[in-house]
Amino acid sequence: MAATESASAGTNDHLITSSDPEHPANHICTLCRSFYNLGWVGGTGGGTSIKRGPHIFIAPSGVQKELMQPHNIFVLEHANRSYLRKPLELKPSACTPLFLAAFDRGAGCCIHTHSQWAVLVTLLVEQEAHAKGEDPMGKCFEIEKIEQIKGIPKGRGKSGMLGFFDKLVVPIIENTAHEEDLTQSLEEAMEKYPDTYAVLVRRHGVYVWGDNVQKAKTQAESMDYLFRLAVEMKRLGLPWVA
Amino acid sequence: MAATESASAGTNDHLITSSDPEHPANHICTLCRSFYNLGWVGGTGGGTSIKRGPHIFIAPSGVQKELMQPHNIFVLEHANRSYLRKPLELKPSACTPLFLAAFDRGAGCCIHTHSQWAVLVTLLVEQEAHAKGEDPMGKCFEIEKIEQIKGIPKGRGKSGMLGFFDKLVVPIIENTAHEEDLTQSLEEAMEKYPDTYAVLVRRHGVYVWGDNVQKAKTQAESMDYLFRLAVEMKRLGLPWVA
Amino acid sequence: MAATESASAGTNDHLITSSDPEHPANHICTLCRSFYNLGWVGGTGGGTSIKRGPHIFIAPSGVQKELMQPHNIFVLEHANRSYLRKPLELKPSACTPLFLAAFDRGAGCCIHTHSQWAVLVTLLVEQEAHAKGEDPMGKCFEIEKIEQIKGIPKGRGKSGMLGFFDKLVVPIIENTAHEEDLTQSLEEAMEKYPDTYAVLVRRHGVYVWGDNVQKAKTQAESMDYLFRLAVEMKRLGLPWVA
Amino acid sequence: MAATESASAGTNDHLITSSDPEHPANHICTLCRSFYNLGWVGGTGGGTSIKRGPHIFIAPSGVQKELMQPHNIFVLEHANRSYLRKPLELKPSACTPLFLAAFDRGAGCCIHTHSQWAVLVTLLVEQEAHAKGEDPMGKCFEIEKIEQIKGIPKGRGKSGMLGFFDKLVVPIIENTAHEEDLTQSLEEAMEKYPDTYAVLVRRHGVYVWGDNVQKAKTQAESMDYLFRLAVEMKRLGLPWVA
Repeated sequence: MAATESASAGTNDHLITSSDPEHPANHICTLCRSFYNLGWVGGTGGGTSIKRGPHIFIAPSGVQKELMQPHNIFVLEHANRSYLRKPLELKPSACTPLFLAAFDRGAGCCIHTHSQWAVLVTLLVEQEAHAKGEDPMGKCFEIEKIEQIKGIPKGRGKSGMLGFFDKLVVPIIENTAHEEDLTQSLEEAMEKYPDTYAVLVRRHGVYVWGDNVQKAKTQAESMDYLFRLAVEMKRLGLPWVA
Repeated sequence: MAATESASAGTNDHLITSSDPEHPANHICTLCRSFYNLGWVGGTGGGTSIKRGPHIFIAPSGVQKELMQPHNIFVLEHANRSYLRKPLELKPSACTPLFLAAFDRGAGCCIHTHSQWAVLVTLLVEQEAHAKGEDPMGKCFEIEKIEQIKGIPKGRGKSGMLGFFDKLVVPIIENTAHEEDLTQSLEEAMEKYPDTYAVLVRRHGVYVWGDNVQKAKTQAESMDYLFRLAVEMKRLGLPWVA
Repeated sequence: MAATESASAGTNDHLITSSDPEHPANHICTLCRSFYNLGWVGGTGGGTSIKRGPHIFIAPSGVQKELMQPHNIFVLEHANRSYLRKPLELKPSACTPLFLAAFDRGAGCCIHTHSQWAVLVTLLVEQEAHAKGEDPMGKCFEIEKIEQIKGIPKGRGKSGMLGFFDKLVVPIIENTAHEEDLTQSLEEAMEKYPDTYAVLVRRHGVYVWGDNVQKAKTQAESMDYLFRLAVEMKRLGLPWVA
Repeated sequence: MAATESASAGTNDHLITSSDPEHPANHICTLCRSFYNLGWVGGTGGGTSIKRGPHIFIAPSGVQKELMQPHNIFVLEHANRSYLRKPLELKPSACTPLFLAAFDRGAGCCIHTHSQWAVLVTLLVEQEAHAKGEDPMGKCFEIEKIEQIKGIPKGRGKSGMLGFFDKLVVPIIENTAHEEDLTQSLEEAMEKYPDTYAVLVRRHGVYVWGDNVQKAKTQAESMDYLFRLAVEMKRLGLPWVA
C-alpha cells in the first residue's frame, strides 16, 4: 500500500492498489480468470485492458492469465502514452497499441482473445471466398437472424442494440508476424466499419471493445457465442446469411 | 433490510431480503450463476423468474447473469401485473409477458435460455422441412426413445413423467423483432400443445417452465440434454424419430 | 447425530452421519456433484451407490444430484435387501435392483450415468449393424489400441489391467420402459461377459462398477473417455477396431 | 513436518513439506487438479513431474489426479536416479523414465496428458498417410500460420518463441505395451528433433516439457489448443499446412 509519486519501475503501486473489486487492477485479474476458464486466453495468449479517467491499465505479456495479480498490471497515461507503472520483470502487452486504437475511439475496455471459434470463422470466411474464386481480403464475418445479435450495440453515436433482423458484420484483418504490426490494419478496419465493436484477426483471434467493462465483456460473450454458433451451423450446412 | 409498504422504485426491499437460499430473490441469483456456467445466459441473454404466493420475482434485463444480486430483482403482483419493486436503474426483463403466460397457466418457475443447442434444433427442423419441400411453420421438435425423455412430465393435470416409448414434442414459434411480441404465439403454442412444458423460439432459444423451481430447472436440463443430443445425432446421421 | 436402532422412515440417521468424507453417505454426495459437472447426471438422471460392510447406500430418485445431502441417502441391508433407512418424502432409486446385481457379484461401488457419449455409442453400434444388414441385438461396443483402455481391469478374479493391445468389449442391452425391468438383461450380460465392469444400455446410458469407490469412479472416467473418443473417431472416419 | 534423513519408504517427509504453493510437492497437486478439469488426466492417466535443484518430484501411478496430496509424491535424486522418498502403498509413475529423458536434456518440468485432442491428431496423421499410400511411421504433426504457435519456444539454445510464419513440427512415436518401453523412441525423437518441446504418442497422448513449470504448463496449453484446433479444422476441410 505504499504511495509514491515516482514513475520508476515497480513503484506507483498506489495506482494498482484498491479494495474495490471493480478497480481496473482488480477487475482485469477477475476478468482474466474468467476468460481463461472460457478457453480464450490459454498459453498466455490474449489480453485485457481497462481505461479509467486518464489512465489505461493493461495485463502484461507472458503471465498466466488465471494467476494474474494487481501488482502485474502496467499503467499508461492515455494522453501521452507514457508508462506510469511498469513492472520491470515483465514485458508490456504486445496488444498495447491495438488497445490504444480502441481507447482513442472512446472505448472504456478492450479485450483480446485467441478463442478457437474466432480463429475458425476467419478460416471459414477465407475458405468460402476461395471456393467462389474470390479474394478473401476484406471479406467480413456476417451473420443475421440470430437473437444473440441483439447483444451487440448498433454503433458509436447510435442508440440501442442491433435488432434481430439486422445483419452483424465483423471485419477481418490479416495477421502479421508481430502483434504491434496489426495496428494499422486494425485502425483502418475501425475507420471503414465505424459501427463495429470488434475486429477479427485471421488465424489469430479477435479484439472486442465496449464503452465500459460490462459492455466489453458482455459483447465479447455475445461475439464468441455467435462465432461458435457459426461454426456449428457450417458443420450442419446451415447458412449464416439467408 | 428496510421494511416499507411503498411501491415506489427501489423500496420494498423486504420483498427481496431473506437468509433462506430458496427465497426467490436468492434462488434466482444462484440459478442464473449455474445457467451462465452452462452457456445458457451469456451476453445478458435469457432470464429466470419464480412465483411465490401472489408475487412474481424476475431477473432484470441487461445484468450479467453470473453477477445477479437480490437487490437487482423485480417483483410483480401476479393478479394485477403491477410492480411492487422496480429497481430504477435497471430495465424490467423483456421476457416478462412470456413468463406471465406460463404463470397464468399454473407454473411456479419459468426459465428462458439462449442455449445454442436449442437454437440449432430449431434450425435443423427448418432445414429438414425445406429439404422435403414443406413449410417449417408449425413443425415441432420431436424425439423419441431416449431415456432422458423421462425427465419431462406427461402434461398438466396428468400424473407422472413421459415414458421411454413416448415421443417428446416441443412446439417451435418464429422469432420476432421484440421479445414481448412473442407473447401471442407463445400462448397459442401453449394452447395448441397443452401438455408441453417448453416452447422453442426459432433462432433464439427456449422457454421452459415447471410447477416449481426444482421441476423447471431439472426439466430445462433434460430439454437441453435432448437438444444437444439431437444435434450430435443429426451430425452422425441418426434419426430423432424411428 | 441421533442414534436409534429403529428401521422406520427417516430414523437410523446414525447410518448416514459421519465427519469422514469417505463415509458412503458423504462420498455419494461429493461424487454426485462431480458427475453433475461432467454432464452425467443432469435432470436427476443416473445414480450412485456404495457398499460398506453389510450395508448398501444409494442416492434416491428425483433429487438434483449436485444438491445431494447425506440425509437424502437410502440404506439397505445387502443380505436381505431390506431398507434400514428410507427417507419418507423421497423415492428409492429405480436403479436399486441393477446396483444390487453388481453388489451381488462383488462390486463395492456402482455408478449409473446418462452420459451422451454412452448413448451415442450404443446408437452408432446399432447404426453400423443395420448398415451391414445385421441384427444389433447382442452386439457390443468394441475398441482397441487406445492407451486409456489400460484404465479398465482385466476382469474379476484376474490380476491387473487391460493392455494396450487388448480389445475392450462392453456389452449393450436394450432399454425397457421401466428401469427395474433392465435387471434380467443386465444380469445376463454380466454372466455372458464375466470380465466386464460396465454394461451399456441402448439410448439410455451406462452402468459401471468397481471393487471400491476409487476403482468404480476411475473406471467410469476411462469408459466415458473411450465413449467420447469413439464418437469423435466415428465423425472423422477412424475405425474403433483395426 | 518430521525431518529425517532416512531414505526408507515414507520418510523424508521434509522433502515434500512446505507452505510455499510453488514448492514442487504442492505445485504438482495444483497442476494435477487443473489438468483433471481440462480432461487431460482422467481415469488416473497422465502425470506431472518437476525438477528442483538435484531432486525430481513425480506424481505416482494410480492416484486420482484431482485428489493428489503432497504426501503422495515420489522424490528422486536426478544424478543417480535413486529414490529419496517412495510412499510404500503407491506405485511409482510408469512415466518416470520418460520424464527423466526430458530432465536429462535440461527440462525443469515435464507433463504427460491423455488429451483426446492429442490422441486424435496422431490418428489423423496416420489416416492421411494411409490415404496417400505412405507409411505413417516417422511422420510428424505439422501446423503453421496459427497465432498460438507463438506460445512454443524456437528450441533449446535458441532465443525466443516460434513466429506466426514458422511451422510447428511435433514428432509422433508409436505406442508400446508398457509405458517404460517408450523411452528409447522418445529419446530418439528428442535427438532427431532437438528443437521440440513435445512428443506425441500414437493412440496414447503427449509428453510436453519446458525449462520450468510456468513454461511447461503454458506450452502444454498451447499444444493442446493447437491439437484441438487441428481436429476442428480437419472436420471443416481446412488444411493444417498451406
